Amino acid sequence: MKTASTLTHLECGHCGATYDAHRLMNLCPACSKPLLARYDLARAAQTLTPQALASRPANLWRYEEVLPVQRREAMITLGEGWTPLIHAQRLGQAIGCPNTYIKDESLNPTGSFKARGLSLAVSRAFELGARELAIPSAGNAAGALSAYAAAVGLPAHVFMPRDVPTPFQVECRTLGASVTLVDGLITDCGARVREGVEAHGWFDVSTLKEPYRLEGKKTMGYELAEQMGWTLPDVVIYPTGGGTGLVGMWKAFDEMEQMGLIGSKRPRMVTVQSSGCAPMVRAFQQGAEFAEPWQGAHTVADGLRVPAAVGDFLILRALRESHGTAVAVTDDEMLAYARQMGRHTGIFPAPEGAACLAAQVQLLEQGWIQPDETVVLFNTGSGLKYAHLWA
Amino acid sequence: MKTASTLTHLECGHCGATYDAHRLMNLCPACSKPLLARYDLARAAQTLTPQALASRPANLWRYEEVLPVQRREAMITLGEGWTPLIHAQRLGQAIGCPNTYIKDESLNPTGSFKARGLSLAVSRAFELGARELAIPSAGNAAGALSAYAAAVGLPAHVFMPRDVPTPFQVECRTLGASVTLVDGLITDCGARVREGVEAHGWFDVSTLKEPYRLEGKKTMGYELAEQMGWTLPDVVIYPTGGGTGLVGMWKAFDEMEQMGLIGSKRPRMVTVQSSGCAPMVRAFQQGAEFAEPWQGAHTVADGLRVPAAVGDFLILRALRESHGTAVAVTDDEMLAYARQMGRHTGIFPAPEGAACLAAQVQLLEQGWIQPDETVVLFNTGSGLKYAHLWA
Repeated sequence: MKTASTLTHLECGHCGATYDAHRLMNLCPACSKPLLARYDLARAAQTLTPQALASRPANLWRYEEVLPVQRREAMITLGEGWTPLIHAQRLGQAIGCPNTYIKDESLNPTGSFKARGLSLAVSRAFELGARELAIPSAGNAAGALSAYAAAVGLPAHVFMPRDVPTPFQVECRTLGASVTLVDGLITDCGARVREGVEAHGWFDVSTLKEPYRLEGKKTMGYELAEQMGWTLPDVVIYPTGGGTGLVGMWKAFDEMEQMGLIGSKRPRMVTVQSSGCAPMVRAFQQGAEFAEPWQGAHTVADGLRVPAAVGDFLILRALRESHGTAVAVTDDEMLAYARQMGRHTGIFPAPEGAACLAAQVQLLEQGWIQPDETVVLFNTGSGLKYAHLWA
Repeated sequence: MKTASTLTHLECGHCGATYDAHRLMNLCPACSKPLLARYDLARAAQTLTPQALASRPANLWRYEEVLPVQRREAMITLGEGWTPLIHAQRLGQAIGCPNTYIKDESLNPTGSFKARGLSLAVSRAFELGARELAIPSAGNAAGALSAYAAAVGLPAHVFMPRDVPTPFQVECRTLGASVTLVDGLITDCGARVREGVEAHGWFDVSTLKEPYRLEGKKTMGYELAEQMGWTLPDVVIYPTGGGTGLVGMWKAFDEMEQMGLIGSKRPRMVTVQSSGCAPMVRAFQQGAEFAEPWQGAHTVADGLRVPAAVGDFLILRALRESHGTAVAVTDDEMLAYARQMGRHTGIFPAPEGAACLAAQVQLLEQGWIQPDETVVLFNTGSGLKYAHLWA
């Protein structure tokens, strides 16, 4: 049975070349930059209305018109998305910013926001005939790929740095994935995936190297608007490794405006990185279009240990267009602010989520955020996979 | 602001004595058995309709009329409930029971079904003026109490067996709870809580020792019916420690029938325990009304290491009234079936969740479950907190 998808074509985010959306694609064949999915938004707007949404399923598939999957049988779901947006009243009072909200992505399958992107990527890869899937990952994305591949019955090959915490490895193996631990960083894992692609014809679902993880991640932007009554906050603070979520939300805001769901107001988008790996912060401060790879990357926040991102120019573009900024925080700050978030909200965050709170406090102190502004922090995953950090 | 709660009074589940619902209560003062919350279901039925529910929030508070909280400000929420009911098609084919569903409770705050009960218990304790909260726990309930106590700003004292896995301890501490590790089992932890109640006036939120955790847990029954289009499955398989979930679902089915939401058909309820701690299985087989405490309890499934349950007679009553049964499975079976569930569904279950699958296979082999029956397994929590078991 057909979905209500209004997907029309793929378009390169850099050179603008367009491609047929109905075959398996990775990067733009012309310039090796990420491809973006495009929709017939005028048609989507006819059925994707606030009234219709009010009684749709409590997962990301509620936005079916602006998702790429064409056949209902190819929607691989484990209940991803429609995570709670928590008004953190006690925390807001403690830090002097009462309108602080946390989008708690730990309530996704596999305990992290990575479920959104991989649900879409695996659904679409399955629909378009991929036979085996492969991914380089800091941990959470590997777990999510393993889960969706198991749900549909496709083999998954995951490559993670050797020092990834045990829970991530166990999760992937229990979900039946083939796990390879690599001496090096996520970029080294990516090289191993490319070898497998060439040798065995695996389909590479690296972030932004295929068009559909972005489409899953963008639903965070749709949910934010819908959960705030079709308005957007003043500031969104987002921990940035590969940056797909930030780029995805920025894309979602544009799509929603074109469909008349929101106006032209945008949040100021803030990227948070670790001081031990901050290529986007450096590039933002230098006014560069692309980011140089970070040398000697190290941080306890595995999801932020991403020295180079293929979507760097899209991240930097969103930060600048939104009048946002980029902030680096230390590992010690992440660990301390995780405790503060925990005891004031009841949310046990991943270090990446805690980094958002550290950045918020920094920006409040600098006057960049005003105390009466509405601020949304993204807790991208559960602290449970990182429990050793606080043991 | 008032909620739509139709709470009328409390009634003892054993001796039938009734009490005012609007003050803090633990066990029945007359007979020391659990108290049950009662509602004006005729009034609740006027507004709690399938049509109204279709556009309500995607959490357990959608059933507001049959929940005890009286004031909106006292609803402490982190997004608990309305977890996905997954049709496990590949798993069902593999085991020869195609209509197998998994209610995935790992998508709750703190990664387990305990969030439901503690959300209600903490909300109600806060509303009725409790100052400090205390709990004995195998792990997941402690994490959930810590979370909701932090959300509302009440001190939490949690007591867990000394050998509880590290992630549970770290979670509670990061959420600001006072953690005490006890040499012994959950029953020994319960004794320590009672000391604190007497010495410091803590409020004891042990399962079924106050009336409202049950009210949170019963929402699993409401969700099951609503998610299956106001029908119920043939069989529900549920891992049973304290048994609050099973007793709660059984109560929910009765309430729903009285409100005209469902008919008189009931699922056959199956209790699963570990062969290392199976007091309910033994009592069920003996035809006893109450269960003798299990000596020398041991199992890797911490949630099933409950040698004595104050609600034993309610569990056994539900099993018998439903024409259900009780099954013990070994730790090895739990670990093996977790892998089978993982690789065929994408859900990485807690050992307690895997125990349900082990029981299902056992009951299929015995012919107690027919291959064409609809079976719902409860995965009560995430495997992540138990990752060491598969490492």
